[in-house]
Amino acid sequence: MKIDLTFSVTNIDELQLREKNVVVIDVLRSSTTVATALYNGAREIIPVPSIESAVKISGSLFGDVTLRGGERGGKMIQGFNLGNSPLEYNEATVRGKSIIYCTTNGSLAMAKSRYARSMVVAAFVNLSMVTEFLAQLNDDVVILCAGNSTVANGFSLEDVVCGGMIVRKLSEAKNVSLDLSDSALAAQSLYKSFGRSVVKMLKNSTHGKYLAGIGYDNDIAFSAKVDSVPVLPALNGNVIKIRKEEQRVAEPEPGPVAKPNE
Amino acid sequence: MKIDLTFSVTNIDELQLREKNVVVIDVLRSSTTVATALYNGAREIIPVPSIESAVKISGSLFGDVTLRGGERGGKMIQGFNLGNSPLEYNEATVRGKSIIYCTTNGSLAMAKSRYARSMVVAAFVNLSMVTEFLAQLNDDVVILCAGNSTVANGFSLEDVVCGGMIVRKLSEAKNVSLDLSDSALAAQSLYKSFGRSVVKMLKNSTHGKYLAGIGYDNDIAFSAKVDSVPVLPALNGNVIKIRKEEQRVAEPEPGPVAKPNE
Repeated sequence: MKIDLTFSVTNIDELQLREKNVVVIDVLRSSTTVATALYNGAREIIPVPSIESAVKISGSLFGDVTLRGGERGGKMIQGFNLGNSPLEYNEATVRGKSIIYCTTNGSLAMAKSRYARSMVVAAFVNLSMVTEFLAQLNDDVVILCAGNSTVANGFSLEDVVCGGMIVRKLSEAKNVSLDLSDSALAAQSLYKSFGRSVVKMLKNSTHGKYLAGIGYDNDIAFSAKVDSVPVLPALNGNVIKIRKEEQRVAEPEPGPVAKPNE
Repeated sequence: MKIDLTFSVTNIDELQLREKNVVVIDVLRSSTTVATALYNGAREIIPVPSIESAVKISGSLFGDVTLRGGERGGKMIQGFNLGNSPLEYNEATVRGKSIIYCTTNGSLAMAKSRYARSMVVAAFVNLSMVTEFLAQLNDDVVILCAGNSTVANGFSLEDVVCGGMIVRKLSEAKNVSLDLSDSALAAQSLYKSFGRSVVKMLKNSTHGKYLAGIGYDNDIAFSAKVDSVPVLPALNGNVIKIRKEEQRVAEPEPGPVAKPNE
């Protein structure tokens, strides 16, 4: 099982992800928020790469079952219903809703995965769900850290440490033999160095400091709780839904046996 | 002193480096080779971004004082005089020569630094020269890891570990107070994890394995020797030369005092 890891979505072309098994990580906060929304009963998340796309798609959907969520600069986009704090995506707000979702890096990474063979969304809050799925899949994986497009190299410590935690957990899984790229190896090492206190690491990260500065301290504490939101968000067509147990079984369901000449 | 670190030259635009103090790292092997060539008496290195540029520039220079060196896929370019092994750049071969230099990532990073305020070339073999210079400079720095353009994310473990060693040594310098980006912090951590045995880290890196596979094991051992080639290659106009001590002193040399009305 080869694992590669990419530090930023910025320079990734969607064709590079074609037919890959992709894990999208945007700890602060898109991955955490998508998991939380689905856990709280949202029908589906529709990730879009731009505000323009969000507006275009909104036009064709009915307002009472659809919400628009996302951020620019960490803050709610004008005309949207929700920002990007996972705490906003509570059951009363999201149950049964389709959410058109637009964020700077996270939804972009999810949208760029549209030609992937599979795509799941990972954060600390649903980490074990992701690693169990990957161990069962036992196939080559690209971990796509959404990163931070406001810094030149796009690097976000928190996304890479989360990716490293996935690598680490997979290395402990039975019957899984890993072949790590340099970047996956580096991520695993960074998890060992910074993963002892996830909340401390998040608070000290560039984007964590930024979010605290605009009043989202609570999101950091929420995003740091490992396995607190046990769902597996997965791309299904062009929307993200909770991956159902039966989908994880590789064998196809037995269909009706066709009779010859029928 | 802010330190930022970039993992790969691939997606860097030269204008992003404008007016920055840049440290170019390509451990395997461009940085090591440039340091070695200058140490062994080469007059200057002329880094070019492409074979096309190398050919164009060669045309206007005299053959007996000029050599063309570099690689594609780790091997000598057809029609060139030298490949990219530091062992080829011995005194008998390079003394007094101008070397037009073209490699996949390293010379590209050096050439992209042409609008930088300053650019020095760093490898393990000249590490202390670089950190002493930076500590004296005591100004914001961008560490540009050349990386590996043959992998999707451009990441090379060896370049980042070398960058992390520079960060680490600077953090121990007197009168220097560091402000690290997430990526610089990550590099420092990777140095702590992988820097104990540089040669082992190089051997296990993706590019190290590749070079060993095409017969360049000796280059790996050579590139791993910390401070074995004590020179400071620096951009000077559009060529790289050894940075002279007097250049490092900030004050200008006193010139003749002009008489009024002269």
